[in-house]
Amino acid sequence: MAVRRAQKKKVASGEPGASLWASADERVREREKKRHAVILTAARAFRKHGYHNTSIDDVARELNVTKPTIYHYVQNKEQLLFECFHAGLGQIMEAFDEVKDSDANARERLSAVMKRYAEAITSEFGWCMVQAENQDLSAAMSKKVRALKSDIDHGIRRIIEEGARDGSIRKCDAKISTFALAGAMNWIAYWYRSDESLGATDIANRFIELFLLGLQPR
Amino acid sequence: MAVRRAQKKKVASGEPGASLWASADERVREREKKRHAVILTAARAFRKHGYHNTSIDDVARELNVTKPTIYHYVQNKEQLLFECFHAGLGQIMEAFDEVKDSDANARERLSAVMKRYAEAITSEFGWCMVQAENQDLSAAMSKKVRALKSDIDHGIRRIIEEGARDGSIRKCDAKISTFALAGAMNWIAYWYRSDESLGATDIANRFIELFLLGLQPR
Repeated sequence: MAVRRAQKKKVASGEPGASLWASADERVREREKKRHAVILTAARAFRKHGYHNTSIDDVARELNVTKPTIYHYVQNKEQLLFECFHAGLGQIMEAFDEVKDSDANARERLSAVMKRYAEAITSEFGWCMVQAENQDLSAAMSKKVRALKSDIDHGIRRIIEEGARDGSIRKCDAKISTFALAGAMNWIAYWYRSDESLGATDIANRFIELFLLGLQPR
Repeated sequence: MAVRRAQKKKVASGEPGASLWASADERVREREKKRHAVILTAARAFRKHGYHNTSIDDVARELNVTKPTIYHYVQNKEQLLFECFHAGLGQIMEAFDEVKDSDANARERLSAVMKRYAEAITSEFGWCMVQAENQDLSAAMSKKVRALKSDIDHGIRRIIEEGARDGSIRKCDAKISTFALAGAMNWIAYWYRSDESLGATDIANRFIELFLLGLQPR
């Protein structure tokens, strides 16, 4: 007990000996950075060549590492695709978390989520976000993908329903409106070209204007 | 000349001898009906099992015909997919033709096109309409698919621009609004289930309300 207390004290005060623990943190960060590089490289390869035309070998070669190194981070190619999908969707989930306790009304919260959605779908992960479910996944993986997509849809739907209550959003069919909104956002991945399209913020602003104001003159 | 005139007269009056010509018409109609059955059967199989998991043999078996019979209508499986894609898009192109010379304002014409779009995308051809371009098509076929999709986008964009001129549609970024609208419509193919979703007309009506009125209370 005395030893443990002493160690704890050293860590807290940054005295010699704490380096042992700091380097453990550093290792975690380092592993996380490497894992991110693996996923990002895979996402780029999947988008460029398609999922079925990309092998774990291709990803390893691109990163200048061996195949077992990739298997250190994911079990198989399917899981690699899932991680890419998840990296994209994670940005939208974060946006829901950020606005959850905000004082902003539902319409403002919806706009904030749409901005992050546009950022995610125009990122390197955009292709995997919309294409993952088209790749003949195993039943188990397919279920995980559908569940996460459903979480996003429910998050949007909840905000639209809250807007009907706080008066910031017109009463409408929240489920169908969610499908329309998510569909428009997801479809960005099909037409967006980083070199010739508007940036994520400009696209988001125009989408927000369209979905909030509608096409009919006010 | 005298003979030809006599034949023409017989056809027009339905006298004996006209049957020869009528049966040629009948043959054309018969071929068209069979061709449609081939495409419809292929569209169902592609949607159910995926493009790569469906063979020309499967389609032939489903129709109780031989493989060469299918090749009588299409050159290969890729062309079969294209015909399914085209059958769906054709319905939207028809809608553009129908409203072209109408007296209705642009907003009403857009609503009419959206209704037909919803019908097409919820039809048996919906899957092929959105999935054709994801199937590792040859460069030539890919180009044809993209060109037809682009025609649809341009048709919608033109109506939105006309609406800005006739005052029936709010001035907006017509290109980005078209992408949002087409994306929302295309995405229907991903969530629509004929047995549990609203029908095409109800979906179209809710989409029209959303895109015209917007989510912000008026």
